[in-house]
Amino acid sequence: MLEKLDLSKTADDDGYEKTLEAYSDRLGVLQRTLREQKIPAMIIIEGWNASGITMAVHEIVHALDPRGYALYAIEKPTDEERARPFLWRFWLRTPPKGRISLFARSWYSRAISEEMQKHTWEKSLKVRVSQINNFERQLSDDGTIILKFFLHITKEEQKARLEERERNPLTAWLVTPSIWNIHRHYDDSFPVIDGFIEKTHTDYAPWTLVEATDRKYAILKVYAAIIRTLEKRCETAGDGKPKKQKDKEIVKPKKNPVRRHSRPDKIFTREELQETLSQLQVEMLEMHYHLFKRKIPLIVVYEGWDAAGKGGNITRVTRFMNPLGYYVVPVAAPAGHENDYHYLRRFIKYFPTRGDIAIFDRSWYGRVLVERVEKFCPESDWQRAYQEINEIEEEFVSSSGGGIVKFWLEISKDEQLKRFQQRASDPVKVYKITDEDWRNREKWDQYAEAIDEMLARTSTEIAPWTIVESDDKWFARVKAIRTIIAAARALL
Amino acid sequence: MLEKLDLSKTADDDGYEKTLEAYSDRLGVLQRTLREQKIPAMIIIEGWNASGITMAVHEIVHALDPRGYALYAIEKPTDEERARPFLWRFWLRTPPKGRISLFARSWYSRAISEEMQKHTWEKSLKVRVSQINNFERQLSDDGTIILKFFLHITKEEQKARLEERERNPLTAWLVTPSIWNIHRHYDDSFPVIDGFIEKTHTDYAPWTLVEATDRKYAILKVYAAIIRTLEKRCETAGDGKPKKQKDKEIVKPKKNPVRRHSRPDKIFTREELQETLSQLQVEMLEMHYHLFKRKIPLIVVYEGWDAAGKGGNITRVTRFMNPLGYYVVPVAAPAGHENDYHYLRRFIKYFPTRGDIAIFDRSWYGRVLVERVEKFCPESDWQRAYQEINEIEEEFVSSSGGGIVKFWLEISKDEQLKRFQQRASDPVKVYKITDEDWRNREKWDQYAEAIDEMLARTSTEIAPWTIVESDDKWFARVKAIRTIIAAARALL
Repeated sequence: MLEKLDLSKTADDDGYEKTLEAYSDRLGVLQRTLREQKIPAMIIIEGWNASGITMAVHEIVHALDPRGYALYAIEKPTDEERARPFLWRFWLRTPPKGRISLFARSWYSRAISEEMQKHTWEKSLKVRVSQINNFERQLSDDGTIILKFFLHITKEEQKARLEERERNPLTAWLVTPSIWNIHRHYDDSFPVIDGFIEKTHTDYAPWTLVEATDRKYAILKVYAAIIRTLEKRCETAGDGKPKKQKDKEIVKPKKNPVRRHSRPDKIFTREELQETLSQLQVEMLEMHYHLFKRKIPLIVVYEGWDAAGKGGNITRVTRFMNPLGYYVVPVAAPAGHENDYHYLRRFIKYFPTRGDIAIFDRSWYGRVLVERVEKFCPESDWQRAYQEINEIEEEFVSSSGGGIVKFWLEISKDEQLKRFQQRASDPVKVYKITDEDWRNREKWDQYAEAIDEMLARTSTEIAPWTIVESDDKWFARVKAIRTIIAAARALL
Repeated sequence: MLEKLDLSKTADDDGYEKTLEAYSDRLGVLQRTLREQKIPAMIIIEGWNASGITMAVHEIVHALDPRGYALYAIEKPTDEERARPFLWRFWLRTPPKGRISLFARSWYSRAISEEMQKHTWEKSLKVRVSQINNFERQLSDDGTIILKFFLHITKEEQKARLEERERNPLTAWLVTPSIWNIHRHYDDSFPVIDGFIEKTHTDYAPWTLVEATDRKYAILKVYAAIIRTLEKRCETAGDGKPKKQKDKEIVKPKKNPVRRHSRPDKIFTREELQETLSQLQVEMLEMHYHLFKRKIPLIVVYEGWDAAGKGGNITRVTRFMNPLGYYVVPVAAPAGHENDYHYLRRFIKYFPTRGDIAIFDRSWYGRVLVERVEKFCPESDWQRAYQEINEIEEEFVSSSGGGIVKFWLEISKDEQLKRFQQRASDPVKVYKITDEDWRNREKWDQYAEAIDEMLARTSTEIAPWTIVESDDKWFARVKAIRTIIAAARALL
């Protein structure tokens, strides 16, 4: 076990440099332990302008092996980032197992500086609080250590430091009029920041407030808190997850589950359906132009039984759509490095930018379908996923003003058998059928149970499921494209 | 073997739709063959505004399995992309093995529209021609198929099409004043584009000019050229590389190789060195500020024998540097998915943005060191690498206005043994020494040969090697930081 440092020492006891060196060595050792135990960690340094964020980051970085950390200085979002949900760029910067993501400023500074400009800032910030708490809880549940620091200085101290920077020719150009302007609003910002910190101070991602007037004291306090937290985790963990998880309120499936049907109530001829589809494809093209022009993003999720016709359906829906404004995301089993992150990250990465349509051919729902049935993850993971998914879809919609359409392509067990056999006997299609498909088919009932629970627990107001009766492929295509058009129209 | 299609058929012979369907099916089959044979392909569609680029892309995309292609609509670069070398964002979009990258416009449109605005556009375009030809040759040598199309319409036809778009309420907003302005300069642009195409029409990346007034004819011509090229390669290849490579002029090592020394001529005391280092660290901090303010990027490459002290040297060089303006890129063996790309891609990804310093702890030189000695790649690959590396460094410097500093940290064989033994007997440092280090040491002479050839063939005017005599670590640190400061000063 790790030998403990005396973290109560201060600069005065033993000399600042010596204490700092001891802390730094210890952090180096702890970083290697994190790596061995595959524990990811996020360290967030926030604070007033000129409070010493850079200096704190600097000292921490010097203790770390560059192979094991990434440092992100969070500034204004780029155009690409601005066109995505608020947390998108932070999701992409979450650490993989065994590594540290260090943030010099973060979603906190961004939320405050972006939302405060709005008239409805109080309401906006409330939304951000909820999104941020969800984000941090999801990562924590997945085993990520989250440490947050706020470096505090008084308005007078800030003024003195800004003036000091202005006197130094090397740093004077960094003290812009906008920095002074923020300084003048110190007293107005104080209660807002204070309230924000209070509302995001959680068990899973607590804040440490650091009195940062004495720079040396501040550095040692940050160091000590990091070391204390990492030591605690490294001692108790081993599987990359906190030992004791607080009991989660498990949402029960709805009483009135979504009914799956593989055949429509009314039967149409193939000619009728094809004729209707052609008209709808033209309408889809127009609707796509409107979304594109208005910069509204849309997510379309295709889930369904093997051989339910997802690929063919997508091809028909997109037939006349401008390929520069939509893309299909084919989802396979995660690649090696993708497994090192929270399972949602690889999907969030492909969330559409403003005006784009992202069509997911399978999706994050794999967590509560194949991963559940095949036991690729423990029950606690997929149980937690329903809520996580609902939260992430909610964040997409509320942050981007876009929409989510989710299809379950339902076929009967007999229809599936027929299609499997057709594929197996057709030399052009035989590549589409694998042993795995046959194995999955044997677990039909287990999948059915997982599907029903998924439909019940993730059919939300902002992202409802649509059952697409797919025994008749042409009917299914018409229903899918019609549903997308209606959803798009509702967004305009 | 693949059954051949009759590609000489035109729309008139057999009906457009039917021919298109046959071509589309064939392309689908070829895509699967590419995947099986692990061949990457790039298809670039260029042309005049309103020449039908989107329509061509649209038809190709519909033939493809979404799992195997990525479509990139190349527009103006984002701020982040603008702060990197010209080809940076295109490198990141090159296809991995077995996949297709499809470009709707590309580095060609960008080069012309960005360079034409400069006074010195003729000279700038000449530089771009050379960079683009190098880029395409490097990818082709690595096995990538490159197909380039230019869709041609006359000025009158363009006018008619733009007016047609303006009449359609769905597309009218896309016809901006700037599009009309470009149209008015059609006659001026013609010879420039023509010359650019001529100079980038190469064996390894040929252009196909497509008369695009008849849209159907254009689509079929593009399709036929793609199918013909892919069929040819799928028949001959198997290892993902073109069977017959043209003979390369192999650059001979320079007559006067760079001499490696592990000890400096003059001996200093440790106190002298530490005192000097402290002063230089402060100077480095200032220099870093100047680079940052002037937005000049710098690459620092550390190569050297195992235990030569790269890590400690980097720590000392960066001691007072602002961590928000530099980063260390620790280079290990490539991860699985990185092997699917040209070996340079994973390094180019970390090339610094304007004002940043990127410090590579090992680098792309691994290709001609460890990969050569350990035979991780065939001789033709590492032989080719000298030229590729020189080209890529040249492109970085000329595109970004930045600099490259390259260190070889030299220690004697005895000194290495001493350090290995120290590490092995120190419980804090023992993790730093592995069996691999001992194995590498046994191949000292083979490495020495590879190092000498590397120094001789890649010590260029814009990116020379500096030998850092590292038997004395403190001397090495002083020399490294002094060299970086001098290089930075030369850039200001």
